[in-house]
Amino acid sequence: MSTLRILASNAGEYSRLIESANLPELQITSEPANCDIVLGEPKLIRDALPLLSNLKWVQAIYAGVESLMDPALRRDYVLTNARGVFGELMSEYVFGYLLFYEKKILERIRLQESQEWQRPESGVLRDKTLGLLGVGSIGAHLASTAKHFGMAVHGFTRSSESCADVDTYYHDPDILKFVKGLDYLICVLPKTQETNKIVDANLLSALPSHSIFINVGRGNAVDEPALVSTLNEGKIAAAVLDVFAEEPLPRDHPFWVTPNLLMTFHTSAISYPENITKLFVENYHLYAAGKPLKYQVDFEREY
Amino acid sequence: MSTLRILASNAGEYSRLIESANLPELQITSEPANCDIVLGEPKLIRDALPLLSNLKWVQAIYAGVESLMDPALRRDYVLTNARGVFGELMSEYVFGYLLFYEKKILERIRLQESQEWQRPESGVLRDKTLGLLGVGSIGAHLASTAKHFGMAVHGFTRSSESCADVDTYYHDPDILKFVKGLDYLICVLPKTQETNKIVDANLLSALPSHSIFINVGRGNAVDEPALVSTLNEGKIAAAVLDVFAEEPLPRDHPFWVTPNLLMTFHTSAISYPENITKLFVENYHLYAAGKPLKYQVDFEREY
Repeated sequence: MSTLRILASNAGEYSRLIESANLPELQITSEPANCDIVLGEPKLIRDALPLLSNLKWVQAIYAGVESLMDPALRRDYVLTNARGVFGELMSEYVFGYLLFYEKKILERIRLQESQEWQRPESGVLRDKTLGLLGVGSIGAHLASTAKHFGMAVHGFTRSSESCADVDTYYHDPDILKFVKGLDYLICVLPKTQETNKIVDANLLSALPSHSIFINVGRGNAVDEPALVSTLNEGKIAAAVLDVFAEEPLPRDHPFWVTPNLLMTFHTSAISYPENITKLFVENYHLYAAGKPLKYQVDFEREY
Repeated sequence: MSTLRILASNAGEYSRLIESANLPELQITSEPANCDIVLGEPKLIRDALPLLSNLKWVQAIYAGVESLMDPALRRDYVLTNARGVFGELMSEYVFGYLLFYEKKILERIRLQESQEWQRPESGVLRDKTLGLLGVGSIGAHLASTAKHFGMAVHGFTRSSESCADVDTYYHDPDILKFVKGLDYLICVLPKTQETNKIVDANLLSALPSHSIFINVGRGNAVDEPALVSTLNEGKIAAAVLDVFAEEPLPRDHPFWVTPNLLMTFHTSAISYPENITKLFVENYHLYAAGKPLKYQVDFEREY
């Protein structure tokens, strides 16, 4: 018999979904000491870690698990994160914003208000080059959508080259070569020591002036003052940020008044309990059978 | 030896592109009587028709050729229109606007102006149902993009059922059955006698109240006063129109002040001379070889 504890703000919904899945030999508990499995939000789990004396497996409901990566925390359990469920949502977000800019939707709304028949020319995605900073399961989905729209795809990774939709791969130290000539740079990097401020003044100044930068990874990847200067000086066309070094974004942050910057607030890919539960159920069957779990996080690599 | 006349506002660009294709046995002329081939805009060609005594083939640079469909005009030539080049552009436009609404981009821009960390929930394309009013080459491309985003696709056609990306086909008289339950209705119909006001009060009132209507076909397909009432009464969520019964849209048209209506002005798919020239070159080789041309228009069917 396994015992599951759920640590999430919407624990009730998860509880209902998992109960209706009728998993064999599984009981849901609210007793910390009892459980061998925890499903939930990394931050809540981090705080509970010292009390979980019987812990074997943690299934995070997010992709980002940086809260559990502090080397001071225990690592004597298997950590799996949520993967394969955010790619589609990220594609909708990223291509929604790219098309919003290329089709000049805001400009057209304003022209409509002037009640005049005016026809600014749209840009097109076709034949443009999209650069992916990080090519995991989310990056792979973005690459497939870019291919659907007839685009070229460049990818920057540590070493992996496993996504067939990426036309050209780049690795350290070729990051400036990677960004040169990109029309769009999309950051999907996790938060690790290695990704800190990877998008810095050097990288930003290597981007073409017509390019658009989108960050749907983690805020730590961006040198935020450098991005503010880049946008203030008009050195790139626009940026769209869903993640920030500090969240919620402080009231006095310069981003609030930076030109050509659109911000959304950590909503580019929501964890839908239905999707995460499917993933948990799949992994639970592997766990019960003593088999290796899917989407295991490597504590050394930090993702 | 064949003789080509170009009748387009950007004739110089077409002339340059076609000359650089070095087509055998082809000469470009500005003499009306001389030419056996005309490439150009349907309206300009219509006016020149009486003078073209040697005419064999007209290649229209647009998809819409309604200017040449008047039964009073001669039909003693092969008419081909531009197809296969607009689908990608239409996909970018249609999915740009669908994502603009689902991702609440305008609402988020306004929230950003308030300088507050607010997180409205986005809608998703995945599992939604898109209805195509007309499934030609443009409709087929829209269907493929909808499939990429994990959507269901319903199609309404005269009789054809040739697009594999359409899950369910409907034909006359099942148009109200077709629109019931759609999340998005996209009209890509050509202008013909049969498509006049096909989007009327009955059809609009059968659409769900959360649905979005987009017209990238021709303006004649919409009963415009009925659409104004539908939007004024909030019976559908929004409409996006690129085409109108009268273009340019008259200054006193009620559309200018209709709520939840976004308008663009016949720009959803531009005829790029590079694309149209490729198509002309392909057809010219068939013409020179005495073979049937691609994308022939049926004067009876009107498209």
